[in-house]
Amino acid sequence: MIKTVGIIGANGYTGSELIRILSFHPNVELQFLYSRSNSGVKISEIYPDLVSVCDMTLTNKIEEVDILFLCLPHQESKNFLAENSIKENVLIIDLGNDFRLENIFENRNFVYGLPEINKNEIKTAKSIANPGCFATAIQLAILPLTKLNLLEDIYTTGITGSTGAGQSLQATTHFTWRNDNISAYKTLTHQHVDEILKTLNQFNEKEINLHFVPWRGDFVRGIFTSSTLKCDLKLEEIQKIYQDFYKDAAFVSISEKPIDMKQVVNTNKCAIHIEKNKEMIVIHSAIDNLLKGASGQAVQNMNIAENWDENLGLNLKAIAF
Amino acid sequence: MIKTVGIIGANGYTGSELIRILSFHPNVELQFLYSRSNSGVKISEIYPDLVSVCDMTLTNKIEEVDILFLCLPHQESKNFLAENSIKENVLIIDLGNDFRLENIFENRNFVYGLPEINKNEIKTAKSIANPGCFATAIQLAILPLTKLNLLEDIYTTGITGSTGAGQSLQATTHFTWRNDNISAYKTLTHQHVDEILKTLNQFNEKEINLHFVPWRGDFVRGIFTSSTLKCDLKLEEIQKIYQDFYKDAAFVSISEKPIDMKQVVNTNKCAIHIEKNKEMIVIHSAIDNLLKGASGQAVQNMNIAENWDENLGLNLKAIAF
Amino acid sequence: MIKTVGIIGANGYTGSELIRILSFHPNVELQFLYSRSNSGVKISEIYPDLVSVCDMTLTNKIEEVDILFLCLPHQESKNFLAENSIKENVLIIDLGNDFRLENIFENRNFVYGLPEINKNEIKTAKSIANPGCFATAIQLAILPLTKLNLLEDIYTTGITGSTGAGQSLQATTHFTWRNDNISAYKTLTHQHVDEILKTLNQFNEKEINLHFVPWRGDFVRGIFTSSTLKCDLKLEEIQKIYQDFYKDAAFVSISEKPIDMKQVVNTNKCAIHIEKNKEMIVIHSAIDNLLKGASGQAVQNMNIAENWDENLGLNLKAIAF
Amino acid sequence: MIKTVGIIGANGYTGSELIRILSFHPNVELQFLYSRSNSGVKISEIYPDLVSVCDMTLTNKIEEVDILFLCLPHQESKNFLAENSIKENVLIIDLGNDFRLENIFENRNFVYGLPEINKNEIKTAKSIANPGCFATAIQLAILPLTKLNLLEDIYTTGITGSTGAGQSLQATTHFTWRNDNISAYKTLTHQHVDEILKTLNQFNEKEINLHFVPWRGDFVRGIFTSSTLKCDLKLEEIQKIYQDFYKDAAFVSISEKPIDMKQVVNTNKCAIHIEKNKEMIVIHSAIDNLLKGASGQAVQNMNIAENWDENLGLNLKAIAF
Repeated sequence: MIKTVGIIGANGYTGSELIRILSFHPNVELQFLYSRSNSGVKISEIYPDLVSVCDMTLTNKIEEVDILFLCLPHQESKNFLAENSIKENVLIIDLGNDFRLENIFENRNFVYGLPEINKNEIKTAKSIANPGCFATAIQLAILPLTKLNLLEDIYTTGITGSTGAGQSLQATTHFTWRNDNISAYKTLTHQHVDEILKTLNQFNEKEINLHFVPWRGDFVRGIFTSSTLKCDLKLEEIQKIYQDFYKDAAFVSISEKPIDMKQVVNTNKCAIHIEKNKEMIVIHSAIDNLLKGASGQAVQNMNIAENWDENLGLNLKAIAF
Repeated sequence: MIKTVGIIGANGYTGSELIRILSFHPNVELQFLYSRSNSGVKISEIYPDLVSVCDMTLTNKIEEVDILFLCLPHQESKNFLAENSIKENVLIIDLGNDFRLENIFENRNFVYGLPEINKNEIKTAKSIANPGCFATAIQLAILPLTKLNLLEDIYTTGITGSTGAGQSLQATTHFTWRNDNISAYKTLTHQHVDEILKTLNQFNEKEINLHFVPWRGDFVRGIFTSSTLKCDLKLEEIQKIYQDFYKDAAFVSISEKPIDMKQVVNTNKCAIHIEKNKEMIVIHSAIDNLLKGASGQAVQNMNIAENWDENLGLNLKAIAF
Repeated sequence: MIKTVGIIGANGYTGSELIRILSFHPNVELQFLYSRSNSGVKISEIYPDLVSVCDMTLTNKIEEVDILFLCLPHQESKNFLAENSIKENVLIIDLGNDFRLENIFENRNFVYGLPEINKNEIKTAKSIANPGCFATAIQLAILPLTKLNLLEDIYTTGITGSTGAGQSLQATTHFTWRNDNISAYKTLTHQHVDEILKTLNQFNEKEINLHFVPWRGDFVRGIFTSSTLKCDLKLEEIQKIYQDFYKDAAFVSISEKPIDMKQVVNTNKCAIHIEKNKEMIVIHSAIDNLLKGASGQAVQNMNIAENWDENLGLNLKAIAF
Repeated sequence: MIKTVGIIGANGYTGSELIRILSFHPNVELQFLYSRSNSGVKISEIYPDLVSVCDMTLTNKIEEVDILFLCLPHQESKNFLAENSIKENVLIIDLGNDFRLENIFENRNFVYGLPEINKNEIKTAKSIANPGCFATAIQLAILPLTKLNLLEDIYTTGITGSTGAGQSLQATTHFTWRNDNISAYKTLTHQHVDEILKTLNQFNEKEINLHFVPWRGDFVRGIFTSSTLKCDLKLEEIQKIYQDFYKDAAFVSISEKPIDMKQVVNTNKCAIHIEKNKEMIVIHSAIDNLLKGASGQAVQNMNIAENWDENLGLNLKAIAF
């Protein structure tokens, strides 16, 4: 049985990425693509890769659907839900950060949509707060260690592609500036730190300090992170903990060999690699920021909430090269 | 009914790209991956993006299959077929250039696998010579004009990604040299010129001169070409000819708006755009050199030869960004 | 004796590139940097590479100087000169296209500043129209052939870095779009065609048709062009003509080996390579669009007009890698 | 008075970069370029950017010179000096890591060539061990804090361009793999850690732990590092310490605004920026790995040892874009 889908904010990066995935998803049908700013324009005019994939025109009318994705700038999902009455039985998946920390909104209770820890809650959810991109990469890298109740200080550097900065033209997304360039931003103050700590502190006894330095990368898609922390266990023990933790995870793999970011680009996967030297360990993780870090994970959450195969529509060919 | 597939030369770029596509193709099952140099190694050790996608180990044994793809360096397909007896009813698709010009080999008669002109022949073929990457991009750009019998001199510049140069380490694929760099190679003498002219001259009365200047691009995937020639028709007439010519083509689209290369990267599509100024026209075309220019087109040919939906397994998400 | 210099439009790409060169030029002193939009801002705030190189603040006051560079958007140089009375003995070098085709403005007669053909006129000039970037690369590639009086149809493709599009934020200079992407623009209608033909037709008897297809490249600096045309001379004869033509040129070199764009990036050089196949020749040329294609050539023109060593301040270290 | 210079290992990246700088240095003359593997080849055949800059041919003969640069693979400088008797009064600057930790070799006592701490020793030195690239970037970022005697744990991530990996063709410098890719290597075990700690521990009472995660970047030139550590001082106090520490440093600047890597590429500069959040500080630093991280610093050391202006030959135009 085909479910109908609407996308609010369909002309942004995460919205259009959803269209790319859902156009080939066997169990859904795109019903409407909502955009206030580009209503009346064909989505394939904005994203020509969608020619012959999705022939729909952006609209400013909201229709009844089974599933609604919100792909709005941060803090606008709340406004949208306040202004538009969405029926209770509609599955809402919000890709913004509005409901990740405060998850109650009117009569909806948003489940944090990280399937690797919340799959059971997601199965019955009607409201899902999709995690942030850096938050996904860093949580997946650290979560198994919370089993040890020993986490204290975590030092993480992460680098992200330009799509993380969205569609608007900015000095830091000008090609002339960004090409071959590296820079830091929101040092120690990135908004995903609270999101990550909210999760980690659920599982860990001691309070955790996450010292996170985000970098802007000179590439378009992808996130790579390295987290350094003290850990007395042997490498083999740690690897075992990770293997166990992710044994049922559809998209996370623990690699004994070094990983590189591009091996997961254009897929919904997360690759993790652990190294140890003396009493310190470093956990590296890599995702595609628009897929496992946004739209791919949103579809994964939809699949789980609809009791479909978790991989449905997500068998994506890696760019690989 | 599932068909079995073997890939000869599975550890190269086009071979591994076939694995990426066929792992998710509903009608085939990979039976064996042949590699002389890497026999015994898991393919996902060489291409870590294949972790959890394809768990197979490269072998130097050839098994019986329904479909055989040859992904060998140029001129090695002949040697392979001479040394290995392949049953007559096996569908062979050769991605090298061995049978594009001389298409008879022993009792096999290779059909040139450009579906946009040879779909009927491909439907019943047991031997298919898959076109070259530049050859595909340039033929698709020019072919509709052969209807006019007026082609004489064509001036084409094309740029290709580094995957076009294959897997081996070379001075011109060293990152330090190639990044941010452009250069020309095989000026006027590229091996695809004969392949292109063989096709075009079938349809055109006058003999055509193709003056082709290939460039090395500072990107990994993709081909972009611009062909300049004299043409007295109005732009609208030319566009009409192209629209008609490709009305049944599953992967070719004629764009009235300018195109860019990245809109087709990681897809099997070819985008074409025509411009006119005075008596001259310029036809731009863009493909992914590893997909429509190699492995994607090979799967398209397989689908046609097996009487499956031409799109099967080829609904690939564009990288887009 | 030190000459004083003012730069109008100092906060753009070509203006700031002039500052980079002139800050280390032994015979000049920067007197003022004019910018209407950023008056009061330190230039090193806008371009942090200038920290400890140039400590000046942008101004909207024009002071008396010996030499004035105009680095304004096209067509604004005329407005500037109409609104501001510049003394006759001030050397004006305009980097815009205002005086390249129509070279008379009030009592000033602009010499076309391509030193390889106009060095004598430049020596005594007080007004110089600095050539365009593509115009420089293509003229230097073709000029020696005008000796033959045989030029008719020239087919040129050129690719340029994003700095050619200037500082403003545009869809086609967004990193997310431009990275790994190639596209065509102003096909057959680029404004430099008239500039090039004005020069070439001075030397050639027949009227020349230049069919020029410009491409946007996925790099920041540099231009690479390939021009194809008929020519019956032997390659050795052609090379001899080029060697002779440029024997006194300080920055042009004819290479018998293939060239690549990056070998001239961050220098004022132009590299040329010629290939022949049957009756066709292809001439490749490479420059840095901001240096030999703009600010470097402007300094070269200044050096010549001031009777200084042509290389002064232009012994720039190539980026090389 | 012009000094004569010889370069051993002139055909590598750091050797050729020295040639680029020294060809325009007013006080030196290149006497010979030594290369065992490419003897007899013109250096401009290998690096075409050197056409018309340096016309010399590589040799396997060593001549008498005033100054000798060793640009050999690590551990080969010792072999070279053991096999070749170099007069005592020749200034030797070694760009390898042979004499950074153990600085005595026969009758030569190598001074560690970080001018920001050892300028007086360098002034009278005849043997200089030029620092490593990451070592330079990280030491310059951390050194002023040793004044506080409080350093304990430092968490640093650094990213380097492909030129850091040298000229040889490797899987990790293949363009197809490296483009748009990020990966970690030598996690916590990079050879520069000991070099850094040797310096830092000279000035700091407590023993320092440096937890360093190096990353491979998808660019050619440049290093960017971020170091996180605990520090109770106010940001203004810290900035003051840095400003004081580097008040006489010719190439180090402390920026109150965020820095980006490209602002120092193709220069000998080091840019530093400090941020503070609660009790943690992060120090970012950026250099060009081939210049301040290798050949540029070697020339700076030569200038100091010869009592020349420290900037001589090092007023390099930034690539900027």
